[in-house]
Amino acid sequence: MNFKRTGIGSATKSGLSSGKRTLASHRNSTLVEQEEKRQDLGFGTRINSSYARLINKDGSFNVSRVHASFWHRLNLYHRLITMSWPKFLLLVFAAYMTVNAIFSILYLLAGPEYLKGLPESNTGNRFWGAFFFSAQTLTTVGYGHVSPSGYLTSAIAAFESMIGLLAFALATGLLYGRFSRPIAHVRFSRNAVFGPYLDVNAWMFRIINQRSNQLIDVEVEVSLSQLETKPDGTPFRRYYLLKLERSKVNFFPANWTLVHPITESSPLYGCTPEQLEESDAEFLILLRAVDDTFSQMVHARTSYRADEVLWGRKFRSMVDSKTSGNYSLDMDTFDDTSEVPLNS
Amino acid sequence: MNFKRTGIGSATKSGLSSGKRTLASHRNSTLVEQEEKRQDLGFGTRINSSYARLINKDGSFNVSRVHASFWHRLNLYHRLITMSWPKFLLLVFAAYMTVNAIFSILYLLAGPEYLKGLPESNTGNRFWGAFFFSAQTLTTVGYGHVSPSGYLTSAIAAFESMIGLLAFALATGLLYGRFSRPIAHVRFSRNAVFGPYLDVNAWMFRIINQRSNQLIDVEVEVSLSQLETKPDGTPFRRYYLLKLERSKVNFFPANWTLVHPITESSPLYGCTPEQLEESDAEFLILLRAVDDTFSQMVHARTSYRADEVLWGRKFRSMVDSKTSGNYSLDMDTFDDTSEVPLNS
Amino acid sequence: MNFKRTGIGSATKSGLSSGKRTLASHRNSTLVEQEEKRQDLGFGTRINSSYARLINKDGSFNVSRVHASFWHRLNLYHRLITMSWPKFLLLVFAAYMTVNAIFSILYLLAGPEYLKGLPESNTGNRFWGAFFFSAQTLTTVGYGHVSPSGYLTSAIAAFESMIGLLAFALATGLLYGRFSRPIAHVRFSRNAVFGPYLDVNAWMFRIINQRSNQLIDVEVEVSLSQLETKPDGTPFRRYYLLKLERSKVNFFPANWTLVHPITESSPLYGCTPEQLEESDAEFLILLRAVDDTFSQMVHARTSYRADEVLWGRKFRSMVDSKTSGNYSLDMDTFDDTSEVPLNS
Amino acid sequence: MNFKRTGIGSATKSGLSSGKRTLASHRNSTLVEQEEKRQDLGFGTRINSSYARLINKDGSFNVSRVHASFWHRLNLYHRLITMSWPKFLLLVFAAYMTVNAIFSILYLLAGPEYLKGLPESNTGNRFWGAFFFSAQTLTTVGYGHVSPSGYLTSAIAAFESMIGLLAFALATGLLYGRFSRPIAHVRFSRNAVFGPYLDVNAWMFRIINQRSNQLIDVEVEVSLSQLETKPDGTPFRRYYLLKLERSKVNFFPANWTLVHPITESSPLYGCTPEQLEESDAEFLILLRAVDDTFSQMVHARTSYRADEVLWGRKFRSMVDSKTSGNYSLDMDTFDDTSEVPLNS
Repeated sequence: MNFKRTGIGSATKSGLSSGKRTLASHRNSTLVEQEEKRQDLGFGTRINSSYARLINKDGSFNVSRVHASFWHRLNLYHRLITMSWPKFLLLVFAAYMTVNAIFSILYLLAGPEYLKGLPESNTGNRFWGAFFFSAQTLTTVGYGHVSPSGYLTSAIAAFESMIGLLAFALATGLLYGRFSRPIAHVRFSRNAVFGPYLDVNAWMFRIINQRSNQLIDVEVEVSLSQLETKPDGTPFRRYYLLKLERSKVNFFPANWTLVHPITESSPLYGCTPEQLEESDAEFLILLRAVDDTFSQMVHARTSYRADEVLWGRKFRSMVDSKTSGNYSLDMDTFDDTSEVPLNS
Repeated sequence: MNFKRTGIGSATKSGLSSGKRTLASHRNSTLVEQEEKRQDLGFGTRINSSYARLINKDGSFNVSRVHASFWHRLNLYHRLITMSWPKFLLLVFAAYMTVNAIFSILYLLAGPEYLKGLPESNTGNRFWGAFFFSAQTLTTVGYGHVSPSGYLTSAIAAFESMIGLLAFALATGLLYGRFSRPIAHVRFSRNAVFGPYLDVNAWMFRIINQRSNQLIDVEVEVSLSQLETKPDGTPFRRYYLLKLERSKVNFFPANWTLVHPITESSPLYGCTPEQLEESDAEFLILLRAVDDTFSQMVHARTSYRADEVLWGRKFRSMVDSKTSGNYSLDMDTFDDTSEVPLNS
Repeated sequence: MNFKRTGIGSATKSGLSSGKRTLASHRNSTLVEQEEKRQDLGFGTRINSSYARLINKDGSFNVSRVHASFWHRLNLYHRLITMSWPKFLLLVFAAYMTVNAIFSILYLLAGPEYLKGLPESNTGNRFWGAFFFSAQTLTTVGYGHVSPSGYLTSAIAAFESMIGLLAFALATGLLYGRFSRPIAHVRFSRNAVFGPYLDVNAWMFRIINQRSNQLIDVEVEVSLSQLETKPDGTPFRRYYLLKLERSKVNFFPANWTLVHPITESSPLYGCTPEQLEESDAEFLILLRAVDDTFSQMVHARTSYRADEVLWGRKFRSMVDSKTSGNYSLDMDTFDDTSEVPLNS
Repeated sequence: MNFKRTGIGSATKSGLSSGKRTLASHRNSTLVEQEEKRQDLGFGTRINSSYARLINKDGSFNVSRVHASFWHRLNLYHRLITMSWPKFLLLVFAAYMTVNAIFSILYLLAGPEYLKGLPESNTGNRFWGAFFFSAQTLTTVGYGHVSPSGYLTSAIAAFESMIGLLAFALATGLLYGRFSRPIAHVRFSRNAVFGPYLDVNAWMFRIINQRSNQLIDVEVEVSLSQLETKPDGTPFRRYYLLKLERSKVNFFPANWTLVHPITESSPLYGCTPEQLEESDAEFLILLRAVDDTFSQMVHARTSYRADEVLWGRKFRSMVDSKTSGNYSLDMDTFDDTSEVPLNS
C-alpha cells in the first residue's frame, strides 16, 4: 500500500489547499505509530478481569447483546443449521404435526361432509380422519380413499399440497446445508504445557484431526491476551501474537504439537506461573485449514487460560507400540503428559 | 512479476526487431508512471457532481444502462434469489395458480368427459373440477377420485406431473440458494465523525455484526472520492485510499470503530467541513469477512457523504453498565455520539 | 521459499555425501536460470502457426485429445451442467419418455392382467395404458384408477417409484447446479485497438459486466503470445506478460478500458501491424473476479489475434448524453471506436 | 510478521517484569533457529523405514488410529459422498428394502385388517401386500387400492410418508454432494524420470488433466522425504522442498512436465540410484488448481518412491503426428519414456 499524497495540492477549485492547519497541528504522531503496531484481535482493550474467558472451550465468544432486534437474534437459518440432530428432527416432527392439526381444523370448518370417504362418526373420529387426510395431502401420498369435494375443501387441499412441496424443498435444503457445512473436527489437548524444548523451554499444546476426511494446508495462530496497567494505573488488556516454531503444515495426517519457544523475544520470557495467573492470561488459538473432501475452508477456535497450563510437563508419544508395520496412533493417549524438568 | 524484455530482439524471422520507432517516440513516459500510481476504484474520473452518490447506503451502485438486452436485464436467477421473501412467496403462489389454470383449460379442450369422476354440471363447475385435478397432478398428490382416460388427457396429465417434478426441483434449488446465500449483516453507524484521537484528530465510523453467526478475518478498506480541477479547469474525480489505524481483525465479536488518523500524509490534512462539502466528497467503504458458520466470504459496502459526517463528536461506549459478570453490548446505543473538542 | 541445503551433508548412514559428481557436472547453470525467468501460460513452446488460435473467442482452448477413455471424455455431470437450456430440457423429456417406455414393456411382459383397471383392448391400447400407469408411478402421482396386483407387477411398480424418487433428486441437483454455477458474464469489446494514450501509444480493449449482479475485486491479466526463431532457425512460441496501466479494480459498475502503454519496456515497442501479423501474435486475456451475490470466484477468458486489433483508433465514450441526473451507459456503443492519429 | 516485544516491560502491575530468569537461561537459541528453518510437511521425523510409503498412489495417507470413537471413525456423510457409485446405489436400494420390511411388519402388528383392499390370504401374501403398501407410502405414490383405516395404521402411514419425504430430501442432498464434489482428475505419469535437461540433469514427472472441464491456476509442490542419521546414530526423517523450474501455470490445456533441475543447491546433487533407494526416499507431490466450471479449488496428491524413478530416460512427446490442423494429444503415449544419456 504505497500511499502517495500527490493530488490534493493542485485541487485549487475545491479549495482544499488553503487553511491547512484547521484539523491537525502535529505533522506526525508517534502515538499513532505506536498504536498501529499494537496487536488487536477484535476484542478491544477494555475487557477486564471481572469478565469470564474471551473464547470458550468450544470456540464461541463471551460477548452478549441487549436490545438486539427480534429478527436479528432469531437468525432462523443459522439456528436450524447449527442445532443438534435430535433437536432438529424433533422440530421437524413437531412442525409436521402442527401443520396437519391446523389444516385438519380448516377442513372441519369447511365442512366434514366435503371430505368424501371420511368415516361418519363423533367429532374426535372426524378430527383424526381430517388429520390423516391432511397428512396424505401434505406429503402428496394422496391414497384417495378420502378425497375432497366442493370448492372450498378442494381449494384448501390444493393449497396444502403446494405448501407440502415447499416444505419438502425447505427440508431438502436444510438437510443438505447441515451435512455439507464445513466443520474442522480438530481436537485440542485438554491442557497446554510448559516444558523443555531443545536448549530452551516452550509453551506447547497438541492437536489432532478426529475425522477420516483429511485436512490440508493447516495454519495455526496463537495469541496471548493479558491484563496490564497504564502509567496512570488503569488496567487494560493487551494482545501478543506468539511466534511458533512451525505455524503451517501441508498435510495433517497425524498429531501435531504446536511449539512457542520462549526465547528473549517472547512476551513469556521470564514469566512465572503466579505472574501468568495474576495477569488473567488467556492463550487464544485460531486454526484455519482446507477440508480435502470438499476443498472448503474450515476454522476451529479454542483458548487456554492460565489454570489450564501445566508447568514442567511434556506430551507423551501417541505412536501405538502394539501395532507394527504401519504408522498407528493411539487416540486414548492424546491428552497424556509426563513430568520433565525444565531447562534452566 | 520480473518482466524481462529479452526475447524480441532475436526474433529475426518475424521481423519485429526492425523499424523500432514506429509506435512510440519516448523511451519512458513520466505521465504513464504518474497514471499508474493514481488510485481508481472502478468508477472512472468522469463522474461529476451533477450525479448522485457513487455507492448507495445499501451498497448498490448508482450506474444505469440503456439498450441492455432483455435477457441480460432480466437475469432471472439473480432476481429470484435477491427479491424479498413476501415477493418471492407471492410469485411462487401466482405461478402455481397460473400453471394450474393453463392445464385446466387444456383438459377442458381435450374433453371434460375424459376426466372420469368429474362432477358433471355447468362450465364453471367443470373448470374448477379440472383446476383441482390439475393441482392434484402438478403436486403429484393424485387422489384418484378424478382420473384421466383417453390418450390425450392421459398424455397431458403425464406431462403435467413431469413439469410438477421439475418445478419442485427448481423451488428446492431456489429456497436453498436464498437461504445459503452469504450476506454480511454488518450494521454501519448512521454517521461518521471527525473527532480527537490520541494527540491528533481522526475520521471515524463504527460497525457491528447484527447476526449471531460469527464473522472472522474482517478486513475494511476506506476510500475518499472527491472532485478536483485539472490545470485547464475541467473538473475530474479523484480517489484516495485512506490509511486506517487498524484495517483487519481476526475476530469480530463486538463493535469496532474504524479510525483514519489525520496526520500530514492524509488527504484530509488541513481540511474544513466547508471544503469537504464543496469538493463533493464521498467516503466509500468496502468490508470483506469470512462467515464462520459456512466458511464463506461475505462482503458489505456503504458510503458516507460530506453531510453525513459529524464534526467534533465521538462515539459513545456500547458497554451495557446494567449487566455485570459478562461483556454485554447495548445495541440501542450503536449510533450514539457525544460532543468533544477537537485537538488543535 | 528460503531453501537451505543443510541436512544432506551429515547423512552419513544413507551414503548420500559420497560420490557427489555422479549426476551433475556444473555447479550452476545459466541456462536453467534463464529458463526459470521465461513466461509460460501452460501451452508450451511447440504450438506453431499451422494451428488455429490458442484460446477461442468464448474462452475454450484449442487442444484436442485422441485415445482418451470413454468415461473421461463423457464427463456426464460437467456436460449436463454446461449444455444449453433447450438441449437440457429436451434431454430430460427424452429420458422421461424412454424410462416410461421401458417400464411399460416390463409391465406388459409381467402380464397386463395384473394391472387392475387397465382398459382391456388391443395391444396398442394396452401399451399406452401401461405407459401412462408407468408415468403415474414414476412421478409418484399414483391416481390409483389403475393399480398393480400380483408379486411381480407390484415389485416392478415399487422399484419404479424408487427410481422416480432418485431421478427427481438428480434433477433437483442438476437444476441447482446449472443455476448456481458461477459465470462471469463479462462482455469483451469485439476488437482491441492501438491508439494514443497520454504522451505515448497503447494497446487497449474494453470490458463491461452484462449482468445486474455486481462483480468486485476484478483482476485482469494480459499475455502476448508470438512465434519467434531460435538461433538454429526452428520456430518456437514465446509468451510475454503485458504490463497494464491498471490491472485491478475494487468495483466494476461501469465499462473499463484496459490499457497496456507501449513504453520501451513493452515487447510491442516499435512493432508494426505487419510484424504483429507475421509473428502469429495472439493476446490472451484472463479475468478473475468475485460475484457479489454469492461471493464466488468467477473467471472469463478470451483472446485477440493480430487481425482483430484496429490501428489508430480509440473507444467512444459510452455515457448516454440523453439521460441526465444519473450516470447512464448506452450498451449499443460498447464496440464503437473512432479514428485518431497515433502519437509519434 | 513483525513481532515487537514492546509491551511487557511496562506491565508493572501484573509483575511480569520481575524475575525474568525463571523460564529461560539463554537469550537466543541457535538450535531453535535451525529448527524453524527445517522443512516439515506434517508427518514428523519419527516415521522410519519399517513403515510403508507416506502417501499412497491414490493420495491417501498411511497413518492409522486405534481407540478412535465409533462416531468419529464412522463419519457417515464423508463415506456416503466418497464411496463408489455401485456401492452407493446398492446401499440406497438396501435401505429402501429394509425400511419397507420394517414398516410392513409394523402394519401387520397393527392388524392387517386395517389395510383396506389388502388381498386376504395366507401370512406370506399378507406380508408382501403390506410390503408393497409400505413402498407406495414411502415413495408417496399412494395408488389407494390399498388404504389405511383405524387410528394406529393411519398414524403409521402418516409417519412413514413423512420419513419418505425426509429420506428423499437426504438422497437429493447426497446425490448433489456426490456430483458437485470438487475432484481434480489429474493423471500422474506412472514413473518419474532422471534425465538430461538443458546443460544439467533433472528429476521430472508428467501430469495431464483427464477431464474436459478446464483447470486453471495450477500449482505444484514437490517435496523429497528421506531417512538421515543424527550424530548419535538414531535415524530420523527429513523433508526437502524441491525447487521447480516452473511451479505454476495459468492454463492447463495440455500435458505438463514438472522439472526439478539438479544444480548444486538441490538435495539430490551428486546422488546415485543406490543412495536414493538406501535412504528410503519418497517424492511427495501436492497439486492445487481451480476447476473452471465451478470456480472451486481442487487438490490432488501422489508420491513416487525410489523404485518408481527411472534413470537415464525422458518422456516422449504426446503430440499426435497423425492429426493435422489442430493441436492434438495422444493419451496412450502419456506414460511413454525413451532412453537418453545423462549430462555428465
